[in-house]
This record gives sequence, C-alpha cells and structure tokens, in this order.
Amino acid sequence: MIIFGIDPGTAITGYGVIRIVNNTVSWVDSGVIVTPAKANLADRLDVIFDALTEKIRRHAPVRVCIEQAFYAKNVHTTLILGHARGVAMLAAKKAGADIAEYSPREIKKSVVGNGNADKEQVAYMVKMLLSPPREHSHPDAYDALAAALCGYYHYNLPAGRALRSSTNECNVLAREY
Amino acid sequence: MIIFGIDPGTAITGYGVIRIVNNTVSWVDSGVIVTPAKANLADRLDVIFDALTEKIRRHAPVRVCIEQAFYAKNVHTTLILGHARGVAMLAAKKAGADIAEYSPREIKKSVVGNGNADKEQVAYMVKMLLSPPREHSHPDAYDALAAALCGYYHYNLPAGRALRSSTNECNVLAREY
Repeated sequence: MIIFGIDPGTAITGYGVIRIVNNTVSWVDSGVIVTPAKANLADRLDVIFDALTEKIRRHAPVRVCIEQAFYAKNVHTTLILGHARGVAMLAAKKAGADIAEYSPREIKKSVVGNGNADKEQVAYMVKMLLSPPREHSHPDAYDALAAALCGYYHYNLPAGRALRSSTNECNVLAREY
Repeated sequence: MIIFGIDPGTAITGYGVIRIVNNTVSWVDSGVIVTPAKANLADRLDVIFDALTEKIRRHAPVRVCIEQAFYAKNVHTTLILGHARGVAMLAAKKAGADIAEYSPREIKKSVVGNGNADKEQVAYMVKMLLSPPREHSHPDAYDALAAALCGYYHYNLPAGRALRSSTNECNVLAREY
C-alpha cells in the first residue's frame, strides 16, 4: 500500500511517499517542488500541478493526504495558499486517488504525539520513523511525509471508528509503531 | 478577438465570452457552472476545471479575465475561494490563454462607472451593452461578462499605458462605448 502526502504552497510544495507492507512503513520518495521565483501565479500553479500529477501517477497511491491550511494571519496569504491547495487536490483527483485532508495539528499529534510540536520535532520523528536516504533542506518534504504517515495511521484504524475524530487512537498507534 | 471572463466560486462559477470586431463588442456565450451540492471539494474542483477547460478551448480567447477575490470576512471562505480560483487559472493556463486579473472594483468601475456598484447595476449594464439572448438567474454569469468587458477595455487602451493603473481611462472608454 502506497500513501502520498502533500504540503502545498505556491513557492514550495512538499511531497512524500511511503509504502506499507505487513504493517511496516518504509520511505519511497520525498522532496519539494520549487516554483521559479519570478513566475506569476498561473505559471506556478501549472508547475505544481504537472509535477504532482507526474509523481502521483508514478507512485499510484491508494490515498493522497493533503495538509489542511492553517489560516495565516494575512488573509491574502491564505487566499494564495488556497490556489496551491486547489491544484494539488485537482492533481490527486485527476490521478484517480482517494483524497484525505488532515489539519497540521492532527498530523503533528499523529507523528510526534503533540499537536503543538514545532517543525524540527516533526522532521526529527519523520527521520526516526522512515530513515529517508538523504537530508532535506526544506522542512516541507518532512511535513509531507508526516501527512502521509498520519494518513496511514488513520487508514489503519480498526474498522468502525470515525476517521477524523480518531486523533487519540491514531496517536496511540503512532506511539506503538 | 475573443475575451473570456470568469467569476470563480466552488458552488457557482460564472463564465462569459465576448467577441470584438472593429471595436464592436458582441455577446458570444455566458452561463454558470454549478457544482453538485453534496460533492466534496475535490469533486467540485474537478467539475469546474473540466467545464472551464472545455469552454476556453472551444472559444479560444486571446485573454482570460478572472475576477480577483474580494477578501471575505470569513477566512475559511476566502481559502476555499482560493481553491476555485486556482483551478480556474490552471484551466486558462493549460488552454494556452493569456490571463489577466481584475479586482471587483476595477470591473464595476469599467462597466458601470462606479467601483461600488451593486450586482443589479452590473447586470443591468452588461445587459445594456451585450444584449445576451437569455436572462441568467445567477448574477455570476453577468459578473463574468463584466470581467470580460473590463478585460477588453484594458486591452483596448492606447499603447504605453500601464494596464493595471488605467482604471480611469478604462472607465472613460466604457462610457464612450
């Protein structure tokens, strides 16, 4: 089972891919899509859509997990982030994947056990759990892997539990893992 | 010359197409893309993208004009609107069109002569200028036609004038027209 995580952004979009075989999680791919600094918004969205489409089609995940936007204090930033999330969702949808959204808090709680964890803690735990073969200079790649891990923990919950209200159980699973 | 206007939204996206021949503007097409009420966000974005792609490719405009988002008081609404704008921009980009963004204020000022005009005034002036063959029940179709008209007035400005700072001249042209 392949799970694909995305941490969307117009300047930098992180992606992370994990494989689960017999309840064992392993790293498959991760990185960032960096859009040209001087590109206009339409060109950036085009780059993000094409790169994500290629990655999602190549890995054929059962689920694509997208980090929910935190609401930036700056409403313009929130709006622009919405553009990037829109094309990320469209890329997943067009590639035929199941789509799940998790809040930054749910993702942090799943992976670190603390919904208020900082980016360094998330990156540390992702490295502990997945041992990616190379260091990423952008935390967005680790955030995307964390979203994929959160999606796996939710995916793996006992049947009958609501997916989105199961952060505590998810957290337990994360710790057991 | 064909100009295509879009008023994006996740529930209802308006589109409007105008043709300019010898400085005479005429109506070509307009309407709304209504997404299924119970559809999730990814499915809605998919519907909007496919419908806009089909319309833009069919009409082959020289320019696609997208209404800039007003910043809703509700930041969540603003974020979700960003998703719809993102896929609208992507559809225009993928169809090879030139993309222009105009604020609601610029559009109203172009078409009505008053940046604070209400939706009824915009619809009234669009009907006066373009005589669409049928009445639209959703104002979004008129807003999209207004965006296309604004794009034409900006397009039509004397060379050497900055496009985005020309609302006053644009307005004069609108009145002369």
